[in-house]
Amino acid sequence: MKYIALLGSTGSIGRQALEVTDWFPEEFSLIALAAHSNVDLLAQQVKKYQPQVAVIYDEDRYLDLKEQLPFFKGEILTGMEGLIAAATLAQADLVLTAVSGVIGLQPTLQAIAAGKDIALANKETLVAGGSLVMPLAKENGVKILPVDSEHSAVFQCLEAGERIEKILLTASGGPFRTYPREEMKFITPAMALKHPTWQMGPKITVDSATMMNKGLEVIEARWLFDIPFEDITVVVHPQSVIHSMVQYQDGSILGHLGKTDMKIPIQYALTYPRRWRNDLERLDFGKLKEITFAEPDLNKFPCLKLAYEAGQAGGTYPAVLNGANEVLVQKFLHGEIGFMDIPRRIEGILKKHEMIQKPTLDDLLTSDRWAREMLEEVQ
Amino acid sequence: MKYIALLGSTGSIGRQALEVTDWFPEEFSLIALAAHSNVDLLAQQVKKYQPQVAVIYDEDRYLDLKEQLPFFKGEILTGMEGLIAAATLAQADLVLTAVSGVIGLQPTLQAIAAGKDIALANKETLVAGGSLVMPLAKENGVKILPVDSEHSAVFQCLEAGERIEKILLTASGGPFRTYPREEMKFITPAMALKHPTWQMGPKITVDSATMMNKGLEVIEARWLFDIPFEDITVVVHPQSVIHSMVQYQDGSILGHLGKTDMKIPIQYALTYPRRWRNDLERLDFGKLKEITFAEPDLNKFPCLKLAYEAGQAGGTYPAVLNGANEVLVQKFLHGEIGFMDIPRRIEGILKKHEMIQKPTLDDLLTSDRWAREMLEEVQ
Repeated sequence: MKYIALLGSTGSIGRQALEVTDWFPEEFSLIALAAHSNVDLLAQQVKKYQPQVAVIYDEDRYLDLKEQLPFFKGEILTGMEGLIAAATLAQADLVLTAVSGVIGLQPTLQAIAAGKDIALANKETLVAGGSLVMPLAKENGVKILPVDSEHSAVFQCLEAGERIEKILLTASGGPFRTYPREEMKFITPAMALKHPTWQMGPKITVDSATMMNKGLEVIEARWLFDIPFEDITVVVHPQSVIHSMVQYQDGSILGHLGKTDMKIPIQYALTYPRRWRNDLERLDFGKLKEITFAEPDLNKFPCLKLAYEAGQAGGTYPAVLNGANEVLVQKFLHGEIGFMDIPRRIEGILKKHEMIQKPTLDDLLTSDRWAREMLEEVQ
Repeated sequence: MKYIALLGSTGSIGRQALEVTDWFPEEFSLIALAAHSNVDLLAQQVKKYQPQVAVIYDEDRYLDLKEQLPFFKGEILTGMEGLIAAATLAQADLVLTAVSGVIGLQPTLQAIAAGKDIALANKETLVAGGSLVMPLAKENGVKILPVDSEHSAVFQCLEAGERIEKILLTASGGPFRTYPREEMKFITPAMALKHPTWQMGPKITVDSATMMNKGLEVIEARWLFDIPFEDITVVVHPQSVIHSMVQYQDGSILGHLGKTDMKIPIQYALTYPRRWRNDLERLDFGKLKEITFAEPDLNKFPCLKLAYEAGQAGGTYPAVLNGANEVLVQKFLHGEIGFMDIPRRIEGILKKHEMIQKPTLDDLLTSDRWAREMLEEVQ
């Protein structure tokens, strides 16, 4: 039996992770469930899985959750302390961090310090804090198992001891891949929320539309696989059949292919290093007909270029990039700014930032906060 | 230093294998070179590599070779005994069998019995004799390293201990993939020798055109990877970018991709289990644009269907299929029969054959000879 603490249980990844654990009820036990603010769904999940700990991050919903769970025998917690308590629960073997945003950084670091393996679906954790997370994981002998489909693909294509020549991260290109450059400023939230291949939460769907998602994934890959940015290439591949690839120094490329179903990488992170049988629909190449490839258009998708630049500049820049992006995506979703204001304003904030080269956790959180506050002040 | 006996040194695979060993002169030593009948090229190779043994299979060319190598200090041998002597040379670590046809079966069995690892580029060996080769290799702790690009791809996608759900063997579909069914009987040797993606010898190029090559590969895969025929699917993929794939029971598919260059799988068989750096051109996805997939048309390519049927029927059927095919391809190349006579006459000979369920080597060779003789007699 593997004991799992699930942070972000009501989000898209969290719900799918519960579906996966439902397939193997003898193998997995959910001992902590944590959600941001969706009290109703969390209460249902707690009733079903009876974890030791239930966490609602939003303190304003704490009483509401308590009220909905009058017979619950476990602990009900809230806030960052609640998340950290869930992530470091004595009995937990694995922490699946599926929260959205930089909120995942502290609980992940604490879980690693407590020796828990991490199934990482929260890319912002590595984008902002890779320089802290990866050395700490190494020090504690903790596995970081990627859940992002691209990184899971790369992870599954790794060969022990072989030097990676190049990582080929595939990108669907999002809904605006073929959209005219000059009309991109008129893109509305409703348009940006329609992703062509993957079913995901709203933040990551907008990030896919700006291709910031791929930029964050490039930075994530740099940390997960300890590879320089110049050896990470983004390949636009709209059908998302190849989930990513690894090129080796003999010219061989190994790729992971399959249906675009997040339950495959989620399951792999939970069952690693083994593969377990499931009944997911298989890819049918007879029906597939064709798949296509292209280079990304950095002129249309400046977010991708900004992410490479912030990643290569290093230090606190990626934390600022990520913090600014989180705020600006929300502003865009609320109709406060336009689609192309997202990269424009991220670029502005990166230019203003005074970078710290070897940041502590405090430096990272301060830089993140600074970026958010600047964006609230300046228009 | 790895000592290599190369059977078939003047053929397409043999010449490319020598090119690969030339890249790593400190790592490989050619201690035996054997060729079918190309005396001039063999003599050049012997002068360059100074093996312990040089073999010309065709006994009529033996004196010619001797004459061309007056200062050669090694042994010059001929015939099947020559091949077997080369394959079992005391110092050899690895035997690369790159001969064409069922001729490779006996030397391969002898090499395995002598404990040599096998780099197998001679698919007919497994097609006819898989039921003998694989158990003998297991018994002697000998590795069978596939050189065929498809099988090398599958081999590179294997994960220790994981059950294969399906092997997806890709097929270019050959030059007549889109050719009208009713005009296929008019196909000439010159037309059949133009392969769209791979540079190969004439026998295998015709086999690609009839798709018998893929049929033989299906049987080869059955033996190499110990998998039932119903779990081997042929996927037509004309661009040959994906060299083949393995589907696992979690729905994940791992594939091997790259340029269509046989030197990649040849090198992997020589350097296994490691990958060494080379300067081969890398695949450029930006230039690739699109790749396509389709199901094979068994009506247009009855050879593929016949191979599945002979493979599933087992016993001596695959040896008969293969022997008949070897003869008929030569007849086609010499203008004696039409393109569609190849499958028609193979089907006829399979129907006449009295199958032996658990054949000895003698049974296999007798069945092979029977098929050849029948085809010489009956028109």
